[in-house]
Amino acid sequence: MPKNPGKKIGFLGPWGTYTQEALVKLLPINEEDLVPYTTEADVIKAVERGEVAKGMVPIENSIEGSVRVTLDVLAFEANLFIEKEIVIPINHSLMARPGVRLEEITTVISHPQSLAQCRGYLSEKLPGVKVEIASSNAGAAKIVSENSGKLAAIGPSLAAEIYGLDVLDSSIQDFEDNQTRFVLVGKEPPGRTGHDKTSIVCFIYEDRPGSLLLILQEFAYRYINLTKISSRPTKKALGDYCFFIDLEGHVDDEVVASVIKCLRCKIREVKILGSYPAANGVTD
Amino acid sequence: MPKNPGKKIGFLGPWGTYTQEALVKLLPINEEDLVPYTTEADVIKAVERGEVAKGMVPIENSIEGSVRVTLDVLAFEANLFIEKEIVIPINHSLMARPGVRLEEITTVISHPQSLAQCRGYLSEKLPGVKVEIASSNAGAAKIVSENSGKLAAIGPSLAAEIYGLDVLDSSIQDFEDNQTRFVLVGKEPPGRTGHDKTSIVCFIYEDRPGSLLLILQEFAYRYINLTKISSRPTKKALGDYCFFIDLEGHVDDEVVASVIKCLRCKIREVKILGSYPAANGVTD
Repeated sequence: MPKNPGKKIGFLGPWGTYTQEALVKLLPINEEDLVPYTTEADVIKAVERGEVAKGMVPIENSIEGSVRVTLDVLAFEANLFIEKEIVIPINHSLMARPGVRLEEITTVISHPQSLAQCRGYLSEKLPGVKVEIASSNAGAAKIVSENSGKLAAIGPSLAAEIYGLDVLDSSIQDFEDNQTRFVLVGKEPPGRTGHDKTSIVCFIYEDRPGSLLLILQEFAYRYINLTKISSRPTKKALGDYCFFIDLEGHVDDEVVASVIKCLRCKIREVKILGSYPAANGVTD
Repeated sequence: MPKNPGKKIGFLGPWGTYTQEALVKLLPINEEDLVPYTTEADVIKAVERGEVAKGMVPIENSIEGSVRVTLDVLAFEANLFIEKEIVIPINHSLMARPGVRLEEITTVISHPQSLAQCRGYLSEKLPGVKVEIASSNAGAAKIVSENSGKLAAIGPSLAAEIYGLDVLDSSIQDFEDNQTRFVLVGKEPPGRTGHDKTSIVCFIYEDRPGSLLLILQEFAYRYINLTKISSRPTKKALGDYCFFIDLEGHVDDEVVASVIKCLRCKIREVKILGSYPAANGVTD
């Protein structure tokens, strides 16, 4: 029986994540069409299986860098297209059950990335507090809501709303300009809009140390701006990398088609992750 | 009163980590001189404060890539030198309290990176098992040893030894050639040996998209081999990166001194993390 994903959209759950917040900002969507998944890999694979029509996952944070599992699954395991992107500011809140005061907190729970982003705040405001790891910050809020101890979670204020917690302090991240970029993945490559971005993965031959230089020169020769370069291990051996590159333009643009054709003559593989409308800055 | 770190060496603990295993392979050292710390940042800062003479931390894994906190603390917070490096194979074991059988396991605990490296194994051999996160895999072994449930930990066999667990299965990682590179950091820059490697961080001016190309050309012009390039956000805004580069040679080599001098004329800053003897492949 063919699956009918209809309008359903998977997202990195549970309910109340920054991913849900970003998705609601990106698209008009009914809550009954949202499907939370536990990991980024689960979201992407649900789209591949046709369980949901599209999936929303974080791909890059301005403090922590690339979201590795998203890049790895898109590059090595899935065959989908990035259809849209959005960048939102990440404002971490400290939240606890109603009645619990800041100075009473004994344990703080959150996703390791959020904890890392609030390391300075925690050692200044809550020195000696016990830190526990949750698989997401919305999940941490859920744990706090279900426990009677003097616990606090770090996460989006949306999670405090959903799980009935009080916000004790907000914008507690150590660095300003904490932003995350999310992508919507699906099976329909979007057409050219004239203001597009393309994401590719370049796999090089081993033992060709000049490969990255060669790749960058191909783009420079054509005056194509790169908006991101990041290397990831190919999971073979230390020092064996592939390169994730985001560039300005659409694969249907002549100049972009030409650079990809040239690179394919020279390096092992160029995988196109998608051409999609470029986000206009940060969406508050 | 001046601190006297003596021969003490900090390492990423608790007892029984891969870091401890790597340290013991790298140096002759008495157990009483070892000091476990909770995080990579804690190890590095203990060296800065003079609490220990040197510190051992993981810096790169062949599957998961760079250890971000190590790079960030070395680049942005500490002023230390990498004095030595070693690469060891990572063989994950599944371990439980004596008497617990594989098919009885209900929960698997480990560090998120180790769990990610055994994702395929877990879904094949232990489908539906609950996964919990610990701050280290040796810590996971400790938790398993202290709990009476049907728990298992993923980690080094050294941890099974230390915490009195049985190894139920070994080499359970999804990818072969799983290796981790560790570095010993301290305050004494090592002299030239003729077989050295240098680690630097290049900070570029914002809005100079050609900077990486320029940097790579400077090295290519001098036939200097790069053994690693990785980009990290500078924690300012999305798209603002610095580059971690490992190259063959020592800062006292004329050609290396020259490339660093040239780069310093052109980019914002070149921070030298150290010149040290290059590891000869993987130490079993």
